[in-house]
Amino acid sequence: MIKIGILGYGNLGRGVESAVTNSNDMELAGVFTRRDPETVKVQTDVPVFKIDDIYNMKEDIDVLILCGGSANDLPVQTVEFAKYFNVIDSFDTHAKIPEHFEKVNNSCLEGGNIGIISVGWDPGLFSLNRLYAQSILPNGHDYTFWGKGVSQGHSDAIRRIEGVQDARQYTIPVESSLAAVRAGENPELTTRQKHTRECFVVAKEGADLAKIEEEIVTMPNYFDEYDTTVNFISQEELDANHAGIPHGGVVLRSGVTGLENENKHIIEYKLTLDSNPQFTSSVLVAYARAAYRLSKEGAVGCKTVFDIAPGLLHPESPEYQRKNLL
Amino acid sequence: MIKIGILGYGNLGRGVESAVTNSNDMELAGVFTRRDPETVKVQTDVPVFKIDDIYNMKEDIDVLILCGGSANDLPVQTVEFAKYFNVIDSFDTHAKIPEHFEKVNNSCLEGGNIGIISVGWDPGLFSLNRLYAQSILPNGHDYTFWGKGVSQGHSDAIRRIEGVQDARQYTIPVESSLAAVRAGENPELTTRQKHTRECFVVAKEGADLAKIEEEIVTMPNYFDEYDTTVNFISQEELDANHAGIPHGGVVLRSGVTGLENENKHIIEYKLTLDSNPQFTSSVLVAYARAAYRLSKEGAVGCKTVFDIAPGLLHPESPEYQRKNLL
Repeated sequence: MIKIGILGYGNLGRGVESAVTNSNDMELAGVFTRRDPETVKVQTDVPVFKIDDIYNMKEDIDVLILCGGSANDLPVQTVEFAKYFNVIDSFDTHAKIPEHFEKVNNSCLEGGNIGIISVGWDPGLFSLNRLYAQSILPNGHDYTFWGKGVSQGHSDAIRRIEGVQDARQYTIPVESSLAAVRAGENPELTTRQKHTRECFVVAKEGADLAKIEEEIVTMPNYFDEYDTTVNFISQEELDANHAGIPHGGVVLRSGVTGLENENKHIIEYKLTLDSNPQFTSSVLVAYARAAYRLSKEGAVGCKTVFDIAPGLLHPESPEYQRKNLL
Repeated sequence: MIKIGILGYGNLGRGVESAVTNSNDMELAGVFTRRDPETVKVQTDVPVFKIDDIYNMKEDIDVLILCGGSANDLPVQTVEFAKYFNVIDSFDTHAKIPEHFEKVNNSCLEGGNIGIISVGWDPGLFSLNRLYAQSILPNGHDYTFWGKGVSQGHSDAIRRIEGVQDARQYTIPVESSLAAVRAGENPELTTRQKHTRECFVVAKEGADLAKIEEEIVTMPNYFDEYDTTVNFISQEELDANHAGIPHGGVVLRSGVTGLENENKHIIEYKLTLDSNPQFTSSVLVAYARAAYRLSKEGAVGCKTVFDIAPGLLHPESPEYQRKNLL
C-alpha cells in the first residue's frame, strides 16, 4: 500500500482524501494542517496532525500531496517539504513554473526525493494534450477553451463590488467559435470570440442593481473584453442551483500533413467535470502513484507530467496494461 | 539530425516520407523495399534500396520505421530488424501484442536497441487515453467509437462478392449513443447501437443488385450485427467522392469521484482525420524521435506508448516545454 499524506485541508485536500480512499493500492497516513487539528472535520477516519508533526513521520509517508494555493502556499511548502518527502503539487501560476521547478528540483536533490509539480488538468492533462498533439502535428494551430465552469477569481471579483452579497460566475466557450475550430477553419479568435461570462448575483437589500451590473460588465481584465450576462437572483436560488464547482474545457489542435499540406486533422481533448477540485485531486493521486514507483527505482529530482511515462500512473502492471489497454 | 529509414513503401511508408520531410530535426536515410527499387516511385529525392542492402547501412540509420502489415510483415520484420536497428512499428493485432512484445524485446536486448511497438492511434493514442483516464477515474466506464471512416477490411469483403466491381465502406458512430455516453448515462450498448455501416458499391454490368445488397447486409461478422445501408453508384462517382481514406473516432471515460460517488466526470478524446495512413505515420515519426533520444541515453529493450515519457516526443527541450506548454 502506498501511504499518502495530505498537507492542507480545503476542497483539494478533501478531494485527495476521497480519491485515495477509492484507490485499492493506497492508504491515508494523515492530514497535516496549520489550524488546530481539533477544528478540522475530515470525511473519513484519517488522523489529523499539526503541520510540524510531519517531520517525525518520514517513515509513515511515501508521498506527500500538497493541497495549498499557488499564490502563497506552494512556492514555500513544496520547496520545503521536497527536502523530506516525495511530493506532488498543483502549482498553476504558468509564468512562474520554471522558477518553481528549479527550487523544487534543488530540494529534491538535497533530500533524494521525487517531486512532480503543476499536476492537475490545466496545467496537467491539457498541457499533455498540447504536447502530444504538437509532437504529432508539427504544422498546426492550438486552441484552448475553458468551461462551462465556475471561475472562483471572477466570482470573488464580483463579490467585492459594493452592494453585492454573493455571486457565482461561469465561463462559457462560444459554441460558434468552437464549431469553426472543429471544422478545421483555423479561425483567429479574439478574447470576446472565445468565451462569454455569465454571472449570478445576489444583491444586498436596497442596492442599485443597474450600477452593480455596469460595474461588472466594465471591470477591466475580468469582464470588459467579454460579452457578459448578469442575472440577479436570491441567495436561496444561488445556494440551491449554483453550489457546485463544475468546470472543464477543450484543447484542440488543427493540423495538416502531406508534402502539399493536403490533409487536415483535428485532435480534440475535452473534459466535462462536475467538481473541479475532486477531479484535480484524482489527477494528483494518480501522479502520486508514479512518484512512489519512480522513487522505488531510485529516481530523484523534480518532474512534470511531461517526464512521467503514462504506464506509471495506472495501478496494474505493464503486462496487464499491454494485454488489456493497448 | 535524426536519420530515419523506411521499410516498406505503401500508404504508411509514403506518410512517413512526408512526415519526416516536414520535421526540422529529421532526415530520410532511405526507403527499403522487397520490390525492384527501380519500380518504386517516391515523392521526394529519398534513395530507394533493396531490403538486403539495409544490413550494410547500420551507421546511416538512427531509427528504422517498419511500414508493413500486421498480419504477415511485422511479426517477422520487427523481430528481425530490432537486432540491428532501433525500430518503430504499428503492430495492431491486439490479441497478439504480448507475444510480439516478447519477441521484439529479445531482439532488442540481443542488439542493444530500442523498439517501440503498436504505435499509431489505435493501438496508440486511443490506448494512451484509455490508460490516462482509467488511472484518474478508477471508478468508471470506457467507451470507444470509431469513425466516421473507411474500413479497408469491410470494403475488401464487399469487393469479394460476385457482381461487385468496387466498393467503399464507412463505419459511423451512432450519434444518439454517443450523446448518451457524453451525458454520463453509462449506457450498455450492443454492437448495433454503437456503429452503423454505410456502403458505396459499384456493380458490374448486369449484376443482380438486390442479391448483392442482401449478401452484404447478411454477411456474418462483417455486417449482420449492424444496421447497414447500401448505395449503388458509378465507378466515376466512387473515384470522385470516395477516394480518400478518412478515419477517426472517440475514446470516452465516464467516471465518478467522491466518497458517495456524488460527482460525474467525462473525459473525451476525439480524432477527426482526413487521412488515416498519414496521421498514423505522423505518430510513428514522433515516437521515432523518442526512440532516438532513449537510445542515446543508453536504454535498450522493447517499449510501448505506455513506457514513453511524453516530453521525449516533442522536438523542443524540456526547458522549452515547461515554459511554453505546461
